[in-house]
Amino acid sequence: MAPQLPTPTSIQEAHALITPYIHRTPLLTNRTLNAIASTPQSPDALLGTPYEGSTPANPKINFFFKCENFQRIGAFKARGAFHALLRLIERVGEEEVRRRGVVTHSSGNHAQALALASSTLKIPAYIVMPKISTPSKIAGTRSHGAEVLFSGSTSVEREAVVVDVQKRTGAILIPPYDDFDIICGQGTTGLEMHAQYLDAVRETPALSVHSSSSSGREGLDAVITPIGGGGLNSGVATFFSDKATRVFGAEPSFEGADDCRRGLDAGKRVESVKTLTIADGLRTPVGVLNWEVISDRSKVAGVFSVTEEQIKGAMRLVLERMKVVVEPSAVVGLAVCLYNEEFRRLVEREAPGGWDLGIVFSGGNTTLEAIGKLFG
Amino acid sequence: MAPQLPTPTSIQEAHALITPYIHRTPLLTNRTLNAIASTPQSPDALLGTPYEGSTPANPKINFFFKCENFQRIGAFKARGAFHALLRLIERVGEEEVRRRGVVTHSSGNHAQALALASSTLKIPAYIVMPKISTPSKIAGTRSHGAEVLFSGSTSVEREAVVVDVQKRTGAILIPPYDDFDIICGQGTTGLEMHAQYLDAVRETPALSVHSSSSSGREGLDAVITPIGGGGLNSGVATFFSDKATRVFGAEPSFEGADDCRRGLDAGKRVESVKTLTIADGLRTPVGVLNWEVISDRSKVAGVFSVTEEQIKGAMRLVLERMKVVVEPSAVVGLAVCLYNEEFRRLVEREAPGGWDLGIVFSGGNTTLEAIGKLFG
Repeated sequence: MAPQLPTPTSIQEAHALITPYIHRTPLLTNRTLNAIASTPQSPDALLGTPYEGSTPANPKINFFFKCENFQRIGAFKARGAFHALLRLIERVGEEEVRRRGVVTHSSGNHAQALALASSTLKIPAYIVMPKISTPSKIAGTRSHGAEVLFSGSTSVEREAVVVDVQKRTGAILIPPYDDFDIICGQGTTGLEMHAQYLDAVRETPALSVHSSSSSGREGLDAVITPIGGGGLNSGVATFFSDKATRVFGAEPSFEGADDCRRGLDAGKRVESVKTLTIADGLRTPVGVLNWEVISDRSKVAGVFSVTEEQIKGAMRLVLERMKVVVEPSAVVGLAVCLYNEEFRRLVEREAPGGWDLGIVFSGGNTTLEAIGKLFG
Repeated sequence: MAPQLPTPTSIQEAHALITPYIHRTPLLTNRTLNAIASTPQSPDALLGTPYEGSTPANPKINFFFKCENFQRIGAFKARGAFHALLRLIERVGEEEVRRRGVVTHSSGNHAQALALASSTLKIPAYIVMPKISTPSKIAGTRSHGAEVLFSGSTSVEREAVVVDVQKRTGAILIPPYDDFDIICGQGTTGLEMHAQYLDAVRETPALSVHSSSSSGREGLDAVITPIGGGGLNSGVATFFSDKATRVFGAEPSFEGADDCRRGLDAGKRVESVKTLTIADGLRTPVGVLNWEVISDRSKVAGVFSVTEEQIKGAMRLVLERMKVVVEPSAVVGLAVCLYNEEFRRLVEREAPGGWDLGIVFSGGNTTLEAIGKLFG
């Protein structure tokens, strides 16, 4: 039986449900970044790539940044966690969920998101984290009242602890990305971007590359999001699947973290990845249900990858020019637009007048020490 | 003859003049920072201070952050530079200003602000910068088309180069802070804070500590800004001088950078300062005209200082929790609220119900390398 896939309607319903609990994060524009993205790369930047020796592409790119780094707990994951927990309560009943509690394994933003959602809705939460997690993340998760349990670092070790917790407490698993309700929750990011873009260009037509055209805008030309487990990208792509906006994905290429891109090339999902990319939110392989959406060319128009140095370059521009704190995972989409010559050629070829392009800054959970280590 | 001092009306007029050229930067709130500021410091934090051994104050502080780090060129200085140049053109005539050009000496945000204003209004600009300025600041100033001239680091050496430029070109000096038009320009920061605060609490009364009180709000209870040369603080204090809002100033204490606070104690302006505080925008002594305003107790209710570690602590909270990039100078006001026990006692004593307190984040011009050096 084919799995049930999310639809634009299921994302609208998710948005109605979670709106009281999440921030409507701002959609920012930035002239400096538009100017940089709309300037050809230096020919040197193409050395050692398939484009070495050719004229660098000259696309016109006009960004709209959806700032989920300003979301509650500092990442879009709050959307999926609240949605999944609210739906679970609808299905199973509040009393039973409160008696049994919920459990997940995550060392990152999903852990804090589920801890926040659980404390808000007064549900016990058990979060399995690798022993080697940074103390600030453990403290952040505990600060929302969740019980933290420690495991080894591999997924086998983590899942074993989850099973232990479930045996002991009856806790119900809320997975980080490979889940219908999680995908619908993350997809609400796309819904807000769409509405905020239309509001912005209605109020200030000059914000759009299409301001001189007589036709009314139907929406962004394109949106690009990071892909880790694929919850955000599959949700956003589902929301836009009945609109003219094209959705792309972005991944780090380091140590094979571009599992989704490689899977699309091979026609088969890559099931495991082992990478230490600086974009630590994107070290996981794409989930099964997420793959069903992302591998559908009518929903996701392409997935592109970038190097660690390109991620750092994009992160520097966002912090130094936009004055906004993002984690490395958050800027892989921007890095594709700035540095991936294949993508830049595509934009130049398809849109001589340029694209209004939505970028999701997926999160901002980093520390000054981590920034110091990357750039010091 | 007493100098002519700015008035609330002159600041309103300045705002009308510069509005087309500047950003109306957002006024942000943040629950996490409110909670931290509204929690007593640990008794250990008071060791070695006059408050050692006493119970830490427990004020209730509710922040409204005016984000001039998002202003054009990344600092409030754009306001003063546009205003001074526009007024100069009004007085002297556009043709003459264009023929002669303008000159200033600055290694920091005023240089870039004047370069931007000049290029926008098509006026030649000569900026004298110390030879040891960081390459990124020199490049930033040049990128707006200004001619950069180099000098030694002392004010005598810098002023000598300014005189040379003036002899050669007839360029007119636009000083960085000790100037009527500059003060009026910077004061527009206060005007916007006031209006944005009233809008915000009208729309969402719960944002205010006074939400349960039946009386309508007249404005913020207090505002605190950094003091370097004093342009921002004297302008903001002038704007609020006919309102109920009290204005405070904040300085670093390192190597005597708290010249204004010391001058107020001594009843006499401190004329020179030599400090290498990390708050590099605040290394200058308060200007003459600025002192006239700031030393008037009916305009500025008090000036407080903080240590380098306290500045770093505040900067960490803003970057890691608010996800907003600020330079060290920008957070001295916040650091006073979080860590200066004398100020915290004052708030507790004067306002049992708490204060709605406006903070000006004066700028965000830092680099990842500088952050790495401070925190790595």
